[in-house]
Amino acid sequence: VLALSDGVFAIVITLLVLEVHVPELSQGQSLSGALEELQPSFTAFVISFILAGIQWVGHRDLFGLIRRTDRGLVWLNILFLLPLCLLPFGAGLLGRYEQEPVALRIYGLILVAIAIMRLVIWLYATNRPHLLWQRLDDRQRRAGLALSVFPGLVYLLAILVAVVAPGLSLAMYAGLPVLYFLSITVLRSGRKRDQEYADFT
Amino acid sequence: VLALSDGVFAIVITLLVLEVHVPELSQGQSLSGALEELQPSFTAFVISFILAGIQWVGHRDLFGLIRRTDRGLVWLNILFLLPLCLLPFGAGLLGRYEQEPVALRIYGLILVAIAIMRLVIWLYATNRPHLLWQRLDDRQRRAGLALSVFPGLVYLLAILVAVVAPGLSLAMYAGLPVLYFLSITVLRSGRKRDQEYADFT
Amino acid sequence: VLALSDGVFAIVITLLVLEVHVPELSQGQSLSGALEELQPSFTAFVISFILAGIQWVGHRDLFGLIRRTDRGLVWLNILFLLPLCLLPFGAGLLGRYEQEPVALRIYGLILVAIAIMRLVIWLYATNRPHLLWQRLDDRQRRAGLALSVFPGLVYLLAILVAVVAPGLSLAMYAGLPVLYFLSITVLRSGRKRDQEYADFT
Amino acid sequence: VLALSDGVFAIVITLLVLEVHVPELSQGQSLSGALEELQPSFTAFVISFILAGIQWVGHRDLFGLIRRTDRGLVWLNILFLLPLCLLPFGAGLLGRYEQEPVALRIYGLILVAIAIMRLVIWLYATNRPHLLWQRLDDRQRRAGLALSVFPGLVYLLAILVAVVAPGLSLAMYAGLPVLYFLSITVLRSGRKRDQEYADFT
Repeated sequence: VLALSDGVFAIVITLLVLEVHVPELSQGQSLSGALEELQPSFTAFVISFILAGIQWVGHRDLFGLIRRTDRGLVWLNILFLLPLCLLPFGAGLLGRYEQEPVALRIYGLILVAIAIMRLVIWLYATNRPHLLWQRLDDRQRRAGLALSVFPGLVYLLAILVAVVAPGLSLAMYAGLPVLYFLSITVLRSGRKRDQEYADFT
Repeated sequence: VLALSDGVFAIVITLLVLEVHVPELSQGQSLSGALEELQPSFTAFVISFILAGIQWVGHRDLFGLIRRTDRGLVWLNILFLLPLCLLPFGAGLLGRYEQEPVALRIYGLILVAIAIMRLVIWLYATNRPHLLWQRLDDRQRRAGLALSVFPGLVYLLAILVAVVAPGLSLAMYAGLPVLYFLSITVLRSGRKRDQEYADFT
Repeated sequence: VLALSDGVFAIVITLLVLEVHVPELSQGQSLSGALEELQPSFTAFVISFILAGIQWVGHRDLFGLIRRTDRGLVWLNILFLLPLCLLPFGAGLLGRYEQEPVALRIYGLILVAIAIMRLVIWLYATNRPHLLWQRLDDRQRRAGLALSVFPGLVYLLAILVAVVAPGLSLAMYAGLPVLYFLSITVLRSGRKRDQEYADFT
Repeated sequence: VLALSDGVFAIVITLLVLEVHVPELSQGQSLSGALEELQPSFTAFVISFILAGIQWVGHRDLFGLIRRTDRGLVWLNILFLLPLCLLPFGAGLLGRYEQEPVALRIYGLILVAIAIMRLVIWLYATNRPHLLWQRLDDRQRRAGLALSVFPGLVYLLAILVAVVAPGLSLAMYAGLPVLYFLSITVLRSGRKRDQEYADFT
């Protein structure tokens, strides 16, 4: 299962760059000018790369808790990879139409779908202790839940905001990784909490 | 062998998304309108993704029974990967020309070729007990056969139906995964049968 | 080393399909007609897929003899992957311009480069017994040499033939896999020889 | 971590070839002529392939020293893969606009970013002895530093040179691998030094 997932993650983050197209110059256009127009594509690439990286780390942590997989988990994992594989499409759309609410909303929907599937896998696995290395206590389960639910809510908000303020919506997609790294750092600095959250963050 | 196969599966399901192109707007066209036109591509993506997922799970189960590979098995596996690698092309064709009987038939032919190769690998492996962890009894072998033959027949039927009713043909490709999950669930609920089928489904 | 190589093989054979483009219909053209024009692309795909499969099996056998790698071997392996990665380009060229001697020659050059690198790896590894599981005798070394040199010579011949008879050149690329499977079968039927060649073929 | 990294390396070096496009002939153009125009693309492919190969070997050596990873290292590794994934874009740009200072500079920036991230990982890991198999002495640490800093400086110089002498800049990108192999060979011939540097070069 991990071989397939790691492969898919590796391919997805590498395919993201295919949406940053080498520009063909139209008449009288300089290469620098054409490259400046690529800037939204590049932004979409970096945001998507980091978000995929967060998902990969989260996925790896989650499966680190799991001792053995059953058929349900295998299929949930495949259904988790489905929206993940759509990420390069979403990034391409966002890079090409970064001001369009529709593009921002589709990008958000892909991220929400990934967050939902991650949540479903978390609930499925933590409710079946025979699949885990060791039973989780309630605080650990809540922490794991929060890690799927909170980003999902931010993405939902970004979808709603997209119609009225596309710029803010994009900032929310870009801001989540920043928030993620900040919260990790804060959690880590509180030593005792570090232990509790170490497995999920 | 599994490293190559898992790699190919991961790449195939990820390449599927490359056939969902970020639209270039023609004059006076809205992005929403252009995205609606992508709907067949998206349908083809989801169907192909799930069908590839079923094949991956089936392939993984099959090789779970196999203790060691010989040269024949290695080559049969490569010939199994050949039609699998054509799946992104078939999905692209289906997404672009979803009403065309030819596109539906080519898609079906790719699926039939995958089903045939899986059947050949099954027959090859189960007739060489020294390659297996343990000898299979007749019921297990029949169950394994059915799992390759039945989808193959559905695809064949979908190919035949394509000329007169393209919509029905597409529905059959889309319906097979549904049927697959239903039959798994039914088989699982019958407890005793569960044991027998557990290794193949 | 094998992880990278297997990954590259998996990606190369999957990228081959990207050179089989979903056709865009020009006015008055039927999809069947457009698909018939794809036939050379499809031929190039199948030939390249099988040739890559042969290389993969050969590479796997070769590294099966090797106990540990040194820096030289790692770099020779990377230089072996370089022409291999060009195979999708060669296949695309061949599928698009199957009657052009230049396309046939470039395809042949890629294959010759792969054969040469395989030969170099073979010579490098077999001359350093500390890298191998066990020392090879002279017959085994000659058999291994022949497996790189013979296809290389066929490709060279196909390159020379390309100018006067493109069809024959293509037939030689397509015929080599047939020859390969025939010779394997013949070698296998001679029981004693089977033992000797088993490790390389 | 290595599974993802190896996957990304494999995909990056294979995607490089996608930037070498099968030419579409314009009227009156011969295929040989069109292929000659591909020569810069091909040069960019070979340079990028070898540079990626050097990075892969360096990455593999670095992680060979590391006994276990922590979260910081995982994230630094992901941020190392980010510019690496941009390499196919850089290679495509360089192949298409090989005389343009901007293209040469962007290519250089990608390489500098890779070198910087490698340096950061080196410093991070060598300052945390509990992550390593064994503590490195100062000479080893300096050697490892030099291996990231020196290429980075060459790339920086190539970026600066790009505006006044694009040809020289390209030669510097192409020359670094030559320098790399030469210095490895020199280091190896000095027997005592060989031992010291063996782990990093």
